[in-house]
Amino acid sequence: MATVNLIEEQEANEKVKKVFKDISETRKGAPINNIWKALANDPELLEATWNRLKVVMGPGALDPLVKELIYIAVSVVNGCEYCIHSHTTIARKKGMTEEMRSELLAVIAMASQTNALANAYQIEVDADFKK
Amino acid sequence: MATVNLIEEQEANEKVKKVFKDISETRKGAPINNIWKALANDPELLEATWNRLKVVMGPGALDPLVKELIYIAVSVVNGCEYCIHSHTTIARKKGMTEEMRSELLAVIAMASQTNALANAYQIEVDADFKK
Amino acid sequence: MATVNLIEEQEANEKVKKVFKDISETRKGAPINNIWKALANDPELLEATWNRLKVVMGPGALDPLVKELIYIAVSVVNGCEYCIHSHTTIARKKGMTEEMRSELLAVIAMASQTNALANAYQIEVDADFKK
Amino acid sequence: MATVNLIEEQEANEKVKKVFKDISETRKGAPINNIWKALANDPELLEATWNRLKVVMGPGALDPLVKELIYIAVSVVNGCEYCIHSHTTIARKKGMTEEMRSELLAVIAMASQTNALANAYQIEVDADFKK
Amino acid sequence: MATVNLIEEQEANEKVKKVFKDISETRKGAPINNIWKALANDPELLEATWNRLKVVMGPGALDPLVKELIYIAVSVVNGCEYCIHSHTTIARKKGMTEEMRSELLAVIAMASQTNALANAYQIEVDADFKK
Amino acid sequence: MATVNLIEEQEANEKVKKVFKDISETRKGAPINNIWKALANDPELLEATWNRLKVVMGPGALDPLVKELIYIAVSVVNGCEYCIHSHTTIARKKGMTEEMRSELLAVIAMASQTNALANAYQIEVDADFKK
Repeated sequence: MATVNLIEEQEANEKVKKVFKDISETRKGAPINNIWKALANDPELLEATWNRLKVVMGPGALDPLVKELIYIAVSVVNGCEYCIHSHTTIARKKGMTEEMRSELLAVIAMASQTNALANAYQIEVDADFKK
Repeated sequence: MATVNLIEEQEANEKVKKVFKDISETRKGAPINNIWKALANDPELLEATWNRLKVVMGPGALDPLVKELIYIAVSVVNGCEYCIHSHTTIARKKGMTEEMRSELLAVIAMASQTNALANAYQIEVDADFKK
Repeated sequence: MATVNLIEEQEANEKVKKVFKDISETRKGAPINNIWKALANDPELLEATWNRLKVVMGPGALDPLVKELIYIAVSVVNGCEYCIHSHTTIARKKGMTEEMRSELLAVIAMASQTNALANAYQIEVDADFKK
Repeated sequence: MATVNLIEEQEANEKVKKVFKDISETRKGAPINNIWKALANDPELLEATWNRLKVVMGPGALDPLVKELIYIAVSVVNGCEYCIHSHTTIARKKGMTEEMRSELLAVIAMASQTNALANAYQIEVDADFKK
Repeated sequence: MATVNLIEEQEANEKVKKVFKDISETRKGAPINNIWKALANDPELLEATWNRLKVVMGPGALDPLVKELIYIAVSVVNGCEYCIHSHTTIARKKGMTEEMRSELLAVIAMASQTNALANAYQIEVDADFKK
Repeated sequence: MATVNLIEEQEANEKVKKVFKDISETRKGAPINNIWKALANDPELLEATWNRLKVVMGPGALDPLVKELIYIAVSVVNGCEYCIHSHTTIARKKGMTEEMRSELLAVIAMASQTNALANAYQIEVDADFKK
């Protein structure tokens, strides 16, 4: 048995219920997604992850949509199917257009390519980048 | 011998010289960085990479600074020391403040963490993410 | 055609049969899993992999269950769906409780996060770590 | 400029000072390492990371030394030079012997190898792993 | 909505149609695969990717089949399911035998293993490798 | 202390001496490189790794030089500085020209880019790739 139990609200303990309620309110009534139901197996991990996520992805010096684009980029390179799907969905809700998605992907592809080239050549970092 | 020769402008062929000139003009006189001198060993690869980079990282539906942030995120996950250094420098020149850098890093850290959790639990993608 | 033939015992050659028998005995009669049936396409690779695995994952200075937890951690970061499933199953058989799994995941998530931060900041290694 | 300022205690604000004090006490007077001085550029990120790390890496269903081994495994696969150095040092302090280190590495190497094979063959997950 | 529209030839614009035609001719009438239909959402990205791919994967100092083997190796380590499937199929068409595939996988597994060991030990690069 | 002791021949035990001798003979008198001196801390791991490496990288259906190119590709994507340096050196000794190196890098860059795109779009594998 290698799968994970998805904890539904009715079977959740008080701590989990409180987090689920906050997720639902923050996301304006959207249903609780599988990742939260999975993390609910460890209520403390659920609470710590959600509380931090809410702060990190909220408004700040960077726009919440920009943060979602960065989130997608990380998820693509880490090859996280779940996170690519969930954050692409969230990014669209926050205003990502098809054109923006195309440019996001073009940047990811470009960076992946030059990352490989710089690593392959073991290029020395320019002195003035380290100043 | 596993290192790469860095081609300086004076020893470069015509194709390389032309690309170097375009890089220098686009970057307002900044010196040619090591990655371009390394790629100059293969003039066609140099030209193809630079021409595409110029288009991809230029203005569009996404702001050039936003594109740099995405570039850094990809480079961090790919562990490319050279690219982290070079694009952090470029991002600063394009207006990345310390506060923006902190938020960028917080998002990268957050995503890396949930990527690992979603992969570890092999969480099934919610049906409505696939609609 | 990009898939792999799964070699069943009845169609296997002598070398493969011998390895399958050893796997089955070591794992107390558990059925031969797909990875071994796939590796059986190259009997030498099968034999080398199994023989080494048996030694590496057996008892030693580290407990076999601890070794499974490490195996899962590596598989998560490498994004190997098959290996996450198989070694989570094996770890459970060797005594991994739900609580241990939660802590394993929390450590993986924590490390993934600080790995990203240390890489993003290109933090210099403290001199006394290198002593 | 792509490097990060390391914040020393004397120049730190109150929140940072408090975290530094807690790190120092928890680690029995060990000096504050560079990663904390780097994170101190963002006092909230510093506080959130340290507070969570202290809980996650503390005693629980898994032994703190086992958690360090898992931490090293993740850091190796993510290629985080800083984290490999720091957590190898910490693991030694918590009792990792040379023999344990050798076995840890052998497991990491073994898993990396079978991860690659399972991915390359795109082996289907056995039905009974998903039960 | 996180999925991507696959653009079929009949709904494609002129630029896309031209690229599709070139793909089809280069691949001797093989049907247009999903990756090209996905990239067709961004005709410029499609054109840039295909034009470069055609040059890079064509004959040169390295045999096209050797290039496919390298492509598969990269895709395995990056965990790209789509690319492993597509390039394994293409490699077979270009003459990859079962024996060659086995050896390719054995090399990928071997390298993954020593990569992990060298990273885990943080082994210093021999001076004469840098000459 | 997080570094690794490099075991020199004079301080090595019999098993290690035997492996060092075989490495030296196979590589025609080349000095023993650091990775083997590091692995010598665990004579069994050293022996298992070397014996397997010798078989895997030797002649077969694939040319030894082609195997080195694949090895480099894997090492680049895994970001293994040591392995990139050592296998680039070995590949040169086996006949890799500058032109071949350029093409190798162009393929690695191309694959890294399409890997990212296919993952980002979560493109469904074409049915006929799975036949």
